[in-house]
Amino acid sequence: MTQPRARALRSDGIRSRQTILSTAAQLATVEGLDGLSIGRLAEHIGMSKSGLYAHFRSKEELQLATIDTALAVFDAEVIAPTQDLTDPLEQLVALADRFLSYLGRRVFPGGCFFAAAAAEFDTHAGPVRDQIAAVEESWVARLQDLIDRAKQQGKISPAEETPQLTFELHAFLVMANMAFVLHDDSVALERAARAFRTRLGLDAAAYQPGQTLRADAKSLAPVGK
Amino acid sequence: MTQPRARALRSDGIRSRQTILSTAAQLATVEGLDGLSIGRLAEHIGMSKSGLYAHFRSKEELQLATIDTALAVFDAEVIAPTQDLTDPLEQLVALADRFLSYLGRRVFPGGCFFAAAAAEFDTHAGPVRDQIAAVEESWVARLQDLIDRAKQQGKISPAEETPQLTFELHAFLVMANMAFVLHDDSVALERAARAFRTRLGLDAAAYQPGQTLRADAKSLAPVGK
Repeated sequence: MTQPRARALRSDGIRSRQTILSTAAQLATVEGLDGLSIGRLAEHIGMSKSGLYAHFRSKEELQLATIDTALAVFDAEVIAPTQDLTDPLEQLVALADRFLSYLGRRVFPGGCFFAAAAAEFDTHAGPVRDQIAAVEESWVARLQDLIDRAKQQGKISPAEETPQLTFELHAFLVMANMAFVLHDDSVALERAARAFRTRLGLDAAAYQPGQTLRADAKSLAPVGK
Repeated sequence: MTQPRARALRSDGIRSRQTILSTAAQLATVEGLDGLSIGRLAEHIGMSKSGLYAHFRSKEELQLATIDTALAVFDAEVIAPTQDLTDPLEQLVALADRFLSYLGRRVFPGGCFFAAAAAEFDTHAGPVRDQIAAVEESWVARLQDLIDRAKQQGKISPAEETPQLTFELHAFLVMANMAFVLHDDSVALERAARAFRTRLGLDAAAYQPGQTLRADAKSLAPVGK
């Protein structure tokens, strides 16, 4: 007879775990992933510290779960909307535009969650750093795969060295994040979108200012909002 | 009669202030500029907390002085060695190579001091953030000025929009820092050096791997070492 109640409690538990993690992911881009103390987070959510400890036994467990939550947001915001495009070159450009739109719409208040986390944890060996590095590697592998497929289809010159081109395209996105967050200037997003197209031999002049910010027409709301 | 002793004490004070700030600048790229608590720094230097408080009345004063020290290192390592070059295009490429060499030689253990500090403080309004943003702006202005002068001398096409080209060249350096620190892979430095040259229409094939790391032939030791 206690089953429905147990189920309700469990589902409350899942809901509040998601609320905690969404808040944590947002807060981490402002205060730092290491600034996510259980006390600070409990205060922000309006929950007791002991209530939070019931969900996460350690700060590291909270940090790892926060990275998973941020990755789900990133996938939904940046990657999923490009998955129906069959042309690898179109998909590559769409990924860049979605990334710039995700910055411009401040899905996370402190810019790209993973850029912030990488800058913070790059010098701290351990599972948190490893998980952040793995996300970054998988993003780079995704860009490389699209470039390779575009080369096979003759849409990118076979003379382009894939890792070098990946480095350069990735650089424009990383720079956009840094400049946008530091100077609060959306011109950086437009510059990155133009640089991305020009480097691929596409017509950057046909690019409309504001296009990256409007890439949210089919936008998904951030998880937990 | 107490003058010589007062002078000796004052010069001891200046020396130990420099030691504190050099250590703080190194530590900040690993632990974060905000991780620079007076207690943590005192422990690292082997000085009492009260001894440190004699030099800096607040954490913010320590952080601002640390930024000044890091800027002196940056100027000596990256900018000063390029000042004798009269050709603006040569000076631009030399600045990039010196920057990459400063990363590769780990002048700061956690990569570029200012990239780390910018990522950490971009979301924290206040004098520390403003000082970091001012250093970044002055770096961008330096690149823009060299590009403008190279355009005037016909060494860069007048069709290039200066802020756009600056954004792209700067991006390669920022990306090199991120990839080098996160993956401990000096290939990122070589990729950035090649991208920088190719973007300027220079012969990247003539670029020798290891050149950026060898740009330290006339290297200056980090301040305080």
